[in-house]
Amino acid sequence: MRFISQTSSDGVTEEFFTLGEIPGVLWTPEHARGTRPLILLGHGGGQHKAAPGNVSRARRYAAAGLAVVAIDAPNHGDRPRTEEFGRIAAEMRAGMTAGENPGALVAGMHGHLAGQAVADWQAVLTAVQRLDHVGAGPVGYCGMSMGSGLGIPLVAAEPRIRAAVLGLLGAYGLAEDAARITVPVQFLVQWDDQMVPRDQSMALFDALGSAEKTLHANPGKHGDVPSFEVDSSLRFFTRHLS
Amino acid sequence: MRFISQTSSDGVTEEFFTLGEIPGVLWTPEHARGTRPLILLGHGGGQHKAAPGNVSRARRYAAAGLAVVAIDAPNHGDRPRTEEFGRIAAEMRAGMTAGENPGALVAGMHGHLAGQAVADWQAVLTAVQRLDHVGAGPVGYCGMSMGSGLGIPLVAAEPRIRAAVLGLLGAYGLAEDAARITVPVQFLVQWDDQMVPRDQSMALFDALGSAEKTLHANPGKHGDVPSFEVDSSLRFFTRHLS
Repeated sequence: MRFISQTSSDGVTEEFFTLGEIPGVLWTPEHARGTRPLILLGHGGGQHKAAPGNVSRARRYAAAGLAVVAIDAPNHGDRPRTEEFGRIAAEMRAGMTAGENPGALVAGMHGHLAGQAVADWQAVLTAVQRLDHVGAGPVGYCGMSMGSGLGIPLVAAEPRIRAAVLGLLGAYGLAEDAARITVPVQFLVQWDDQMVPRDQSMALFDALGSAEKTLHANPGKHGDVPSFEVDSSLRFFTRHLS
Repeated sequence: MRFISQTSSDGVTEEFFTLGEIPGVLWTPEHARGTRPLILLGHGGGQHKAAPGNVSRARRYAAAGLAVVAIDAPNHGDRPRTEEFGRIAAEMRAGMTAGENPGALVAGMHGHLAGQAVADWQAVLTAVQRLDHVGAGPVGYCGMSMGSGLGIPLVAAEPRIRAAVLGLLGAYGLAEDAARITVPVQFLVQWDDQMVPRDQSMALFDALGSAEKTLHANPGKHGDVPSFEVDSSLRFFTRHLS
């Protein structure tokens, strides 16, 4: 794990790093020492580890005492694009233009990335928990849209993750992994999502195997999640990871 | 307004009263002075103002500084039963036994009570806000199931109410009143509700005219709302009434 930069402001320290081929960012409370809960923060499709929504959420969590780590998903952010991904992305766009089912198209793209993404997250989790100011405390996962498309296979596979905030995605291709998830989940739905049909969102929530799961639906389109849901997710993590 | 009893424990004062024919309970922080937010707390069908769920919620809110008032709905609790209500309730039970649509049957019963219930609440709101330890602060309404069946006409009609927590009910007979509601609403759905079909719950949420509305769905049957939703509703009221 190689650290590239470290800056602190408003009580939060932000460290850019690479772990092998994986570029990442770690946010912790300034002057943090000792073990604390860690949130793995996945980004949306076409976005990257330090997209504005990620950064503001991460800083909010870190200001409350948590550690937060984000990485670029395969073929996103500072990572190289493979030819195969370029072809899949082009086919996805062409299919959407041609009026094909966007849920199925997006699921195909997520399925192509998920194997690598799960392995990346597992390596990053192991490395970050070795740091003195993070430690091997309880772990949560937070990711919407593609962050759920890659996060649901991760949460299903990774027993160190004890709680997850997911959503803005339908059930295509994810029902089996969702059924294997048993940790508490907070699940976000945008009531007027132009990319995810409401019944597909409901089907994914329904498929989750967790005994404790809460769906939060708010009016607005895919990108319009209200800011109070960030505070709500922080309380959810605090309740389950403290 | 005639006070019948006053007791204090754990920092909360509980006062039973009558206002004309209406029996009620008021919860306030012990030794409270001055104006504070007031929550009108409606109860479910067949329950009453001091049912255990109402009392624990009211005490939680009052411990956080709010005033809370509950009254017996018409034909409930300490109030007399009319012959007409007895006939309607018997027809409702017979219809359910005969396999008729429970949503429509329940809506008929609520519709019979709503006119009186709205007038009762408006009178109680006026009277309680004249008390020194309540005052004319911002007002919220909280009621599930029948508490929503009577509360939705109230919130639609009463401009003093600025935020509402509703749910556990379908859209039968309520769509027009729901569309007239414009204040922020937190809306609860039980995912496995044996009394309210999921699509009817979603239809009622959809019908609300509020720009800010949040649906919270949790696994379990009609009566199984998790206790963390009480804390969540308190934060919702605090956000909108402070």
